Amino acid sequence: MSVQEMIKTHPRPASHDQEALARCVQECFECAATCTSCADACLGEESVQELVRCIRLNLDCADVCDATGRVLTRQTGFEPQTARHVLEACAQACRACAEECERHAEHHEHCRICAEACRRCEEACQEVLATVA
Amino acid sequence: MSVQEMIKTHPRPASHDQEALARCVQECFECAATCTSCADACLGEESVQELVRCIRLNLDCADVCDATGRVLTRQTGFEPQTARHVLEACAQACRACAEECERHAEHHEHCRICAEACRRCEEACQEVLATVA
Amino acid sequence: MSVQEMIKTHPRPASHDQEALARCVQECFECAATCTSCADACLGEESVQELVRCIRLNLDCADVCDATGRVLTRQTGFEPQTARHVLEACAQACRACAEECERHAEHHEHCRICAEACRRCEEACQEVLATVA
Amino acid sequence: MSVQEMIKTHPRPASHDQEALARCVQECFECAATCTSCADACLGEESVQELVRCIRLNLDCADVCDATGRVLTRQTGFEPQTARHVLEACAQACRACAEECERHAEHHEHCRICAEACRRCEEACQEVLATVA
Repeated sequence: MSVQEMIKTHPRPASHDQEALARCVQECFECAATCTSCADACLGEESVQELVRCIRLNLDCADVCDATGRVLTRQTGFEPQTARHVLEACAQACRACAEECERHAEHHEHCRICAEACRRCEEACQEVLATVA
Repeated sequence: MSVQEMIKTHPRPASHDQEALARCVQECFECAATCTSCADACLGEESVQELVRCIRLNLDCADVCDATGRVLTRQTGFEPQTARHVLEACAQACRACAEECERHAEHHEHCRICAEACRRCEEACQEVLATVA
Repeated sequence: MSVQEMIKTHPRPASHDQEALARCVQECFECAATCTSCADACLGEESVQELVRCIRLNLDCADVCDATGRVLTRQTGFEPQTARHVLEACAQACRACAEECERHAEHHEHCRICAEACRRCEEACQEVLATVA
Repeated sequence: MSVQEMIKTHPRPASHDQEALARCVQECFECAATCTSCADACLGEESVQELVRCIRLNLDCADVCDATGRVLTRQTGFEPQTARHVLEACAQACRACAEECERHAEHHEHCRICAEACRRCEEACQEVLATVA
């Protein structure tokens, strides 16, 4: 994916672990896209009434992952304090969404796939958190 | 502003302080817009080289405020844990951007206005944080 | 609102009608916020099944208005061709959302308010379109 | 990528060409991420003064591609008119950004990669436009 290539071409790379960072950025954008899709698929189910909380958490997770992916992509004037707080918010939004999607994973394939994307993103955020002092 | 009206018309309002919440949502969206504008005004200055860090923090703050405003607007299936972490990230992004803009406030009117918007948003986030258990 | 002040402080203002532009930017961000809120209020209604199309158009309109507000806020290196196409997409997203919300305006106050915000934004986009050659 | 899988699991797929659509969604999100990264890399260059227009078009393209990716991901209550206008705006934002990045491609690897991502996304939008009546 070109984002990983892009991070390598940066004129002033921030000093933290670039590989963990690139993986996290990719998981954030993929999770944002997957949650946007899961919210829409839930909205199309006949049982939408039972998926209201799932849709809400999907929408939150999409918005927080998208903002996190953008903040982490930026290397110029990197600000560790902001990165930490944003990563913690993202890991939390992913956890909440994954827990809800897992409850519907047996009945809805989109929830099963979405829960996996959220768990991967949560983990990637935790990995970067361990390296941003 | 219609967002405050909107929050009042919600069929299932979340139980926290609705007035502080509506003020915070409004500050988040206003801060996002102001930071987007400040990044662009900085980019148009002849001294852009000295404003590189300011532009970066403007862009971060715009993205985080926008996501926070969206998450806090949602009342259905309100998730206090996610709200807390997102509010903390937003307060931090606003603080970092305000500190940088304040350094340029004497020379650039857009930075002075932006610093004020960031401080108001940071404060509004802290107020809601005090009410979300 | 500080965005209007901000546009006035820009070091290189684009040459089009600044007043119509500032109004349009404000309507875009307000419409984005209102549509985000209406989607969530619809999701909280017992009759959510009948509001599925409304929620979808709300989400589209929020995303397109937010992007349009950001693009129009930027004055540095203003690109009339992109502005035109983005404004046309925004006017269309607002129209589609307004038409759907108007169908529910009698039963849901949030849809009534949202339809009005969409119509104001559609009109503001048309006004700027008339000035961007 | 999971978005393609996701689109296949939708309970009410829209009737247009699903393969072209999935490719376009993926290109939109990848282009948004790449443009966010290119804006930041340009901001970190010593020659930032010469890259001001490039940064501005990168930011526009990122915002428009992100909104387009979200709108096209949604299948429930698909609205061809909105899709058309959004796709046209996206193709235009990609074209403007690609043209500018191509001017710097020899000197900046990030601009070369970004121009390619923009051209791929522009083409993917045109392909979907040909199928959405």
